[in-house]
Amino acid sequence: MAQGQGDYRILHEADLRAYLAGLPDLKELLGGEPASWAITEVGDGNLNLVFIVKGARGGIAVKQALPYVRLVGESWPLPLSRAHYEYLALSRQAQLAPGLVPAVLHHNEDLALTAMELLEPHIIMRKGLVAATRYPRFVDDITTFMARTLFFTSDLALTAAEKKEAIAAFAGNHALCKITEDLIFTDPYRVAEQNRWTAPYLDGLAASLRDDMDLHVAVSRLKLKFMASPEALIHGDLHTGSIMVTDSQTRVIDPEFAFYGPMGFDVGAVLANLLMAFFASAGHERAPGERAAFEAWVLETVEQVWNQFARKFLDLWRAAAAGDAYPPSLFPGEKGAARLETERQAYMQRLFTDVVGFAAAKIIRRIFGLAHNIDFELIEPPKRRAVSEARAVGLARAMMVETGAFPSIADVIGAAQKLRDWMPELSG
Amino acid sequence: MAQGQGDYRILHEADLRAYLAGLPDLKELLGGEPASWAITEVGDGNLNLVFIVKGARGGIAVKQALPYVRLVGESWPLPLSRAHYEYLALSRQAQLAPGLVPAVLHHNEDLALTAMELLEPHIIMRKGLVAATRYPRFVDDITTFMARTLFFTSDLALTAAEKKEAIAAFAGNHALCKITEDLIFTDPYRVAEQNRWTAPYLDGLAASLRDDMDLHVAVSRLKLKFMASPEALIHGDLHTGSIMVTDSQTRVIDPEFAFYGPMGFDVGAVLANLLMAFFASAGHERAPGERAAFEAWVLETVEQVWNQFARKFLDLWRAAAAGDAYPPSLFPGEKGAARLETERQAYMQRLFTDVVGFAAAKIIRRIFGLAHNIDFELIEPPKRRAVSEARAVGLARAMMVETGAFPSIADVIGAAQKLRDWMPELSG
Repeated sequence: MAQGQGDYRILHEADLRAYLAGLPDLKELLGGEPASWAITEVGDGNLNLVFIVKGARGGIAVKQALPYVRLVGESWPLPLSRAHYEYLALSRQAQLAPGLVPAVLHHNEDLALTAMELLEPHIIMRKGLVAATRYPRFVDDITTFMARTLFFTSDLALTAAEKKEAIAAFAGNHALCKITEDLIFTDPYRVAEQNRWTAPYLDGLAASLRDDMDLHVAVSRLKLKFMASPEALIHGDLHTGSIMVTDSQTRVIDPEFAFYGPMGFDVGAVLANLLMAFFASAGHERAPGERAAFEAWVLETVEQVWNQFARKFLDLWRAAAAGDAYPPSLFPGEKGAARLETERQAYMQRLFTDVVGFAAAKIIRRIFGLAHNIDFELIEPPKRRAVSEARAVGLARAMMVETGAFPSIADVIGAAQKLRDWMPELSG
Repeated sequence: MAQGQGDYRILHEADLRAYLAGLPDLKELLGGEPASWAITEVGDGNLNLVFIVKGARGGIAVKQALPYVRLVGESWPLPLSRAHYEYLALSRQAQLAPGLVPAVLHHNEDLALTAMELLEPHIIMRKGLVAATRYPRFVDDITTFMARTLFFTSDLALTAAEKKEAIAAFAGNHALCKITEDLIFTDPYRVAEQNRWTAPYLDGLAASLRDDMDLHVAVSRLKLKFMASPEALIHGDLHTGSIMVTDSQTRVIDPEFAFYGPMGFDVGAVLANLLMAFFASAGHERAPGERAAFEAWVLETVEQVWNQFARKFLDLWRAAAAGDAYPPSLFPGEKGAARLETERQAYMQRLFTDVVGFAAAKIIRRIFGLAHNIDFELIEPPKRRAVSEARAVGLARAMMVETGAFPSIADVIGAAQKLRDWMPELSG
């Protein structure tokens, strides 16, 4: 991974063309004369520049971090170092979950730039969900990704020394963590300039959330867990906009929020975004029941994501425990094995409690915070959107405050089904 | 804090004399000609060299780390870097709890050497407890030390960014953490060469602990919490041998095990060592009831250590919260303040649960692990010692496995009182 000689500069098309032309491996991969390469800036995320570069032979994706939040502008600076943490995380994920992240072709820390395998014809999963597309590979792939990246970076797989060094290696990515701390765990629950929601219909719900002290305690506990529970190397932003899919492939992208945090945050993110796809679906149907099969698939996927994740994680624990936690020597013989197995189940139950809470937080932030998602945003008219959003918030509030009422994934799904056709009272 | 020029070497008396003579501030403090200084090696701890140096004007204590565990020898290497972490921790503790740690006068990272204020006429608290001495300042001082060092290094006082940087700054001290992980949370529960206990009388109890799978699950959960819950900068070895006292002063020494870990580990260590002093006391009495007033003071101290710690920690939280956890903006007005106060109490209750578990682990390791303490060791004959130890283990086992049966410090004290005259069945 070559380091650039110069300082950081934002690369415009011509700069990028010249830069790539100077990298023999990429030049070869792209093929043809550099002047013939088609370069398009396609970034639709919140933070970075993303270029698609296509040559006579092949294509690549190039991501460059900007020194500020793209969505907001230069008034919100953000360290370029996030590109390096993203590179570190991508490299680790590629080792642990091969084939489930884009291959890294080149990284330049000074330029905050990474060139990656071009994912084609993959699309952002969220777009597919809005179009009611089902993805048959998704459950197996995302649960493999999560089980392997989380297990192998946890105290179940690493020695305590390795774990502490790994935590320290990502400690500097705190500016990205702070975005999560503010935008997910704080702002949606108070008056904040950047909040928005489907007004005026959700004005009352927004006010009730700001006034709900039990909810504020619950989200504060989750925030503390996010800040001070370095259980594993988490992706940190694992929503359906960070997943690219085809019928036969799944790729997890954009781990720039990666750090050592609570595992439940990643699993909760996936479930939250599926649940939002479910609640949004009613808003997208042009005729009643039109998307029923899709919605059934989404809820089945919610169930399978947890169940298969738990099964794979437990299988790894049984087969590949090499960490300092739960030392095998303390659980000898049949009696020890049986007691440890009971504890493994209890561990997963505690993790599930975290998952339920974090999923709830991820839903609420998409409806009352800064960053919304197209699942809801594309529902028109706004009043109809507000109905879908209010249903999702109804579930999320219960999941966060009455977490004990959701001891299993079936309880989450049951509650979602009950809310499918619930007509909330709207403001305005 | 000057850095030495050369590499590490073990300083013998003559080397130390020459080294100190070259430090003008210390030379001035000691007074007189270097040749006249009285230098005595007094280290009775497990890891380091400790010299007392006295001159015509004053005295200092000099601590030098050895590249191995002193108690065991060169076969057990241990990084010299621990001296630097100790220096970092001492400096931070001195800022946060002034007057409660020895003043650092000089530190040389290359030599793994620190010169400190000579504590005179302080004695190691554990020795005083064996002699049934009561320390009227102890509760107030140790609770101030713990409340301030733990609160001000927690997410309640630091921003998430500051906290992550601080965690990273101590991550390299993992070799010291591993000693704790092995000797406290693992070895006493399995066959391990370094274990010892009062044989043959505790042979049966040792075997029953090795066979107790509920206990092994409980201690494994505590171990995981120790490894992966960087709540605050903890001392990491806060037993009564790390506390020096007079009637009017308390000084906490030897923070070389310091790292970001669970707060309950420090508080539990203090309580465990007081509880061991209580159970040992019966073994030291020459006539029944001779030490009753001391024992009553010890249990009163157990109660007050928790209660005053909790009160001071809560007072700091109410007055000095500047961290990213529990943002004040989420708890506005009277209603918010009341709900946050309820949550503060719940937070302390969760912390108390940790304290009970960690205290239990600290008791068991002193009876079945490598490092024992004079509270028990000085009881003769061994059979009498075993009786005191078995009582302590009876309490510890219950605290670790049935932690929920100890919702308050009064429950711990009540259980200890009930075991005061219990006659355990001994082996042999």
